[in-house]
This record gives sequence, structure tokens and C-alpha cells, in this order.
Amino acid sequence: MERVYNFSPGPSTLPLPVLERVQGELLCYGSTGVSVVEMSHRSKMYLEIYDEAIALLRKLMDIPEDYAVLFPQGGATQQFSAVPLNLMTGWGAADYVDSGNFAHLALEEAKRYGTVNVVGSSRADNYTYVPALDKATFDPSADYFHIAVNNTIYGTRFTELPDAGAVPLVADMSSCILSEPYDMRRFGVMYAGAQKNIGPSGMCVLIVRKDLLGKANPLCPKLLNWQVLADNDSMYNTPNTFAIYVAKLVFEWVLAQGGVAAMEKINIAKANILYDYLDQSKLFRGPVQKPFRSRMNVTFVTGDAAKDEAFIKQAAKAGLINLKGHRSVGGMRASIYNAMPAEGVRALVDAMKAFELENS
Amino acid sequence: MERVYNFSPGPSTLPLPVLERVQGELLCYGSTGVSVVEMSHRSKMYLEIYDEAIALLRKLMDIPEDYAVLFPQGGATQQFSAVPLNLMTGWGAADYVDSGNFAHLALEEAKRYGTVNVVGSSRADNYTYVPALDKATFDPSADYFHIAVNNTIYGTRFTELPDAGAVPLVADMSSCILSEPYDMRRFGVMYAGAQKNIGPSGMCVLIVRKDLLGKANPLCPKLLNWQVLADNDSMYNTPNTFAIYVAKLVFEWVLAQGGVAAMEKINIAKANILYDYLDQSKLFRGPVQKPFRSRMNVTFVTGDAAKDEAFIKQAAKAGLINLKGHRSVGGMRASIYNAMPAEGVRALVDAMKAFELENS
Repeated sequence: MERVYNFSPGPSTLPLPVLERVQGELLCYGSTGVSVVEMSHRSKMYLEIYDEAIALLRKLMDIPEDYAVLFPQGGATQQFSAVPLNLMTGWGAADYVDSGNFAHLALEEAKRYGTVNVVGSSRADNYTYVPALDKATFDPSADYFHIAVNNTIYGTRFTELPDAGAVPLVADMSSCILSEPYDMRRFGVMYAGAQKNIGPSGMCVLIVRKDLLGKANPLCPKLLNWQVLADNDSMYNTPNTFAIYVAKLVFEWVLAQGGVAAMEKINIAKANILYDYLDQSKLFRGPVQKPFRSRMNVTFVTGDAAKDEAFIKQAAKAGLINLKGHRSVGGMRASIYNAMPAEGVRALVDAMKAFELENS
Repeated sequence: MERVYNFSPGPSTLPLPVLERVQGELLCYGSTGVSVVEMSHRSKMYLEIYDEAIALLRKLMDIPEDYAVLFPQGGATQQFSAVPLNLMTGWGAADYVDSGNFAHLALEEAKRYGTVNVVGSSRADNYTYVPALDKATFDPSADYFHIAVNNTIYGTRFTELPDAGAVPLVADMSSCILSEPYDMRRFGVMYAGAQKNIGPSGMCVLIVRKDLLGKANPLCPKLLNWQVLADNDSMYNTPNTFAIYVAKLVFEWVLAQGGVAAMEKINIAKANILYDYLDQSKLFRGPVQKPFRSRMNVTFVTGDAAKDEAFIKQAAKAGLINLKGHRSVGGMRASIYNAMPAEGVRALVDAMKAFELENS
């Protein structure tokens, strides 16, 4: 069976050279005589992999030394709880932007631990844009200000980061981390589920400015307490050793592509192939307002559910899979993370063109 | 490089046929055109793997229908918090047996959420036995009764389960699950980190009698709430898809060995090879009281730290690795989980015999 182009929103496509490397050393890693998945997380052979993963990520994202880099389990969703449990001092307060389903889940979870001030929402418009923000509505004494930078389900993104002043900016970066350079100094905390731009599911990349550690709610479970994670290099318990190993290989691959700035150029070019076609198509259109178009998740519809379904089926037969949109949006969604090659995007546009010709 | 015999306490040895299968289908699973690690957890292709993993575990452990089988992230340690957060109704109370380091960590975490009654402890004797219990000291109104059935670091095990009456028995089974048959009806809750007898790290097997769901503390984070996990088939968020897939292959392998009862026979025979030798050796001895000897983790010492170190080095050169004991016990520990073949144990005893001859 040949490999197909997989547009899944996550878990999703990994770079083929990474998968080949994993396959090659699966029974025996280097001269160790064991598989990576059989290594004690405290063994020298594994710690070399772990330390290298941290060092590579620091280099790729230019993470300053006063930020801790952690690899907890539980993906981004666990951080929806951990963020308020670590930062809402006492029964605290935080500003949230409600720009999508995951942003919404994050703020609903935070409400259980403090006061949530929703400073902007596009929920009533099914999240087809990122809401405009008025700084006058921000709470200057908030414990933090939370955004989801890229909204996977809807295909929108923050093109400009909000200016929360001295309030730490906390960002869910799950579907855009490593896709373009971000200035870490603008953020207090970044977190990202690995299964989109980094590696297999079951791990989170969590980057915390060190002055934000040590403030956790007394009832915060140990594994959600960032101070505990930082004090133990993410090894208070056994971490997801396989996912961290694959992440390390992905970090090496991103570096080999030229780093994050080079990835951004490639990602803009890839997204433009799709958006340029959508803008002149008479059958397909993007539901998202143009200024907020995501470079990672491109949503599109025909406006006719039967045609959408027919296209998804036809594309799958041509080896272009997982194009079905999220049920709350309908239509199609092409997730084109770092590991999706430009050829995959071109093949998709070719299939769209052919379908349009047949259906006009 | 040839594969070695790996006596790591976890992550540890996996069955070679399982690793070969993972390797064979790593780039492309069946006719899907994608790797397992690239599959959406909500796709039909992945759900088949997931459903089969659950069905196989139910069959292997004979789990009644009124128990939920869940695969959360965070290993057993996350359940140290989840157990009290789910079962201590209000500021509740629970009985704990302090039989080892992990049992101790579990009870320390529970103290943060309620009253812990330690009904037995071997801590003062460095956990060289499982403490005797007096039913008169049990709290009949406790929310639950907690034990760690096998104590990985020390090499002890409960040979008989405590009778807590109507109080639900909650057990950390991390290092003994699937090693011998346990009657699920005796337990309210079982949990086990996967990285010893099941698969890669980053997942937990959690089995909960359904009447114990729905009692969580209002501050329990969503991903630690068993009701949320059960309502969403462990997919409230993206689970550790790779670990669940490998676990499925391990479950198939256990079934092919004849199931859990057959594994027990093999495990008794394997442990006896080591214990029989220890009992007649003039150099090596086991620090654990005989009635409490674990079948999974066999600890032994020479009584001379320099000799211990020399043996560990000599064994490693002979392809017998990760024999160093935990720092709190010293000496050696051979973890001989299901996937360690009898040949590995015999090779270890041969190395011990040779070392004894050279050092007597």
C-alpha cells in the first residue's frame, strides 16, 4: 500500500524521513541493544535523547533561559485545567478571548477555579473571525490573559498578538507552534499538544516564564503543578518517552528545513496555493473572513452538503484523506501542518479543480 | 547491534514479535496509507484498534460489564491524585497500606484531599515485607481502601488481598497487572501504568466499577474526572494513540501465550529460577522476607557495595542490562515482567554463578 496525503487535524502527517528513522531503529536504538520504548526514562541512553529534544526546541524557538521547557502528558486539554490551577492565585481572575471551540473549553474550565472575563467573542458568528479587542475592557489586575493563537476547527488565527501590558499572555499554540516564528518574550506561558506540528499524541510542549512558577492552587494535583514538573525536569513520573523521542526527530527535521523562519515561508506558499484557488473558484469558497485565515487549517465549502460529501469521497479515492470538516462547521478542512509537503496541497487543488469542472 | 536482556523496572522489555509488528507497519498501517501515529483518534481506522484493545483486555482479565475500562494519560502517578479526587466525597477519608515508595506517594497525595488512615506500614523496615493488617483498625466508613499490590522498588507483593468488606478496594497494579489472574470483583478500582507489563509509557489502564463514577470533587480537573473519561470513551481529549495501539498488540501476545493464567505459570517458573539460586548462594541474598517475594521484581545484594557494582558492570558486558537496584535499596534488581523470556533469567543466573565462583 502506498502512503496517501493525510489532511487530518491531528494526530496528523509526520515527516516521512522521521518515520523512516523511527522504523529503522525501532528494535534497537544505536548500540544500546534495546528499543527506545524499552528504555528506562532515567537511563543515560534515554536522557541523551531527552536533553537533545529540549536543546533543539530552545534553539528552534529561541527560548530565553528564564523560561522552563516542560513535556507533560495530557496534551493541551490538561493545560486548560493546569493554567488556572497554576496562575489564578487564590480565587483569581483572568481575561480570555473566545475565538473557537478549544478557546471556549479552556475558559469554561477556568471558570471552575476563578473569575473569567471574556474580553472578546466570535462565538455568535460560529467563530469565522478572531474578535476585535478593546484594551479598555482588559482587567489590568488579571492573573493572566489567555488566547488560542490558531483555531483548528474554524481555520482562523490571530495575526497580531493582543497587548495585555504587564499581565502575562498565556497561549494555546497547539496548531501553530513551529509554523512561524513567535517572540517568546511576548508570552508568559505557551502550551501545545504535540499531535499537530510536533509528533505523536500524548504529550504537551509547555514553556513557562520561571517567575510564574510556584503559585499553584493548594489543591492542584502534583502532575499539573508546573513547579513540580520544573523541579523534576518533567520526570516526577515516567514521561511519554516515545513521543519525546519522535519530537526530537521532528525538531531535527525542522532545523534541516532551515528552522522556523524557513518553515513559515514554506507554509505561506502552501496556504496560498489553496487560498488563491478558493478566491477564484465558482464552486468552493472559504467561510473564514480573509484577514483571519489560518495557514495551518484551511476550511472550505461548496454550500451544498451533498456536493461536499461527494468531493470528500472522490478525494479519498485519489489518496487525499481526512478532508471532512468538523461537524460544527461542515464542508471540508485541509490541515496542512509543517509535515504536509507542497505536493500534497497541489494534489488537493488539482482534485478540487477537476471536481469543479465536473460539477459546473 | 544485537538485542540484550533488559531488566529495567520500567519502561522495560516488550515482546519481540510485538516490536517487529510495530516496525513492519510503522510507515503504513494495513491498507490505510498512513502510520498509526498519524491517524486521527476519531477515525474509523483508529477506533477499530481502540475497540479491539478494550475487548482484548476485558477478555484477558475477565472484566465484568459493570466496570468501565479507561485509558487515561499520566500513568499511575496521575491516579494518585485522581483516586482521592474521584472517591473522597466531600472532605472524605480512606485507608491506605504503606508498603513501598509508590504506595507512600499515593497516600501523601491523598492527604491533600481528605483524611488518610494508614492501616499498616513497613516503612520503618525499608519495606522488606508487606505489613500485617488488623481488620479492627480499618475504617468501615472509609470512601475506599488503597493498596499497591506489587512493590516495584523493593520486590514485594501482597500474596493475599485485604478484606475491606463493603469499602471499595482500590489497587495500584502497575507492576503486576496481567502477570497472574486477579478476580476483578474483589476490586472497586484498578489502575496500572502501562510501561511495565503492557506497553510504552504515557498511558494508564484504569478499571472502575461503574457505581463509583460520578462522585468527583467539584475542583477535579476534567481529565482526572473518571465520569468524564467514561462518558467519552477516554477520548474527551486526544489519547496516547501509539501506546494504546502497542498495548493492543501486547494483549494479543498475552492471549497467544495462553492468557493470564498461562502467564502466571511462566512467571512462577521464571521467578523460581532466580529465587532457587539465591536461596543456596553464598554470595548473593535477597533482602525481602520470603513470604512476600515478588514474581516481577527480584531484588538481591552481596552485602558489599563494591562487589554489587562489579557484578552490575560484568553483567552489562554480557548483555544483561539495567540490573542496578533502586538507590533506596541498593544492590541489584531484576525486573522480569511478562515479556522477559526464561532464557534471559537463566542467562542472569549463569552470570551470577560465574561471578560467585570468581569471588569466593
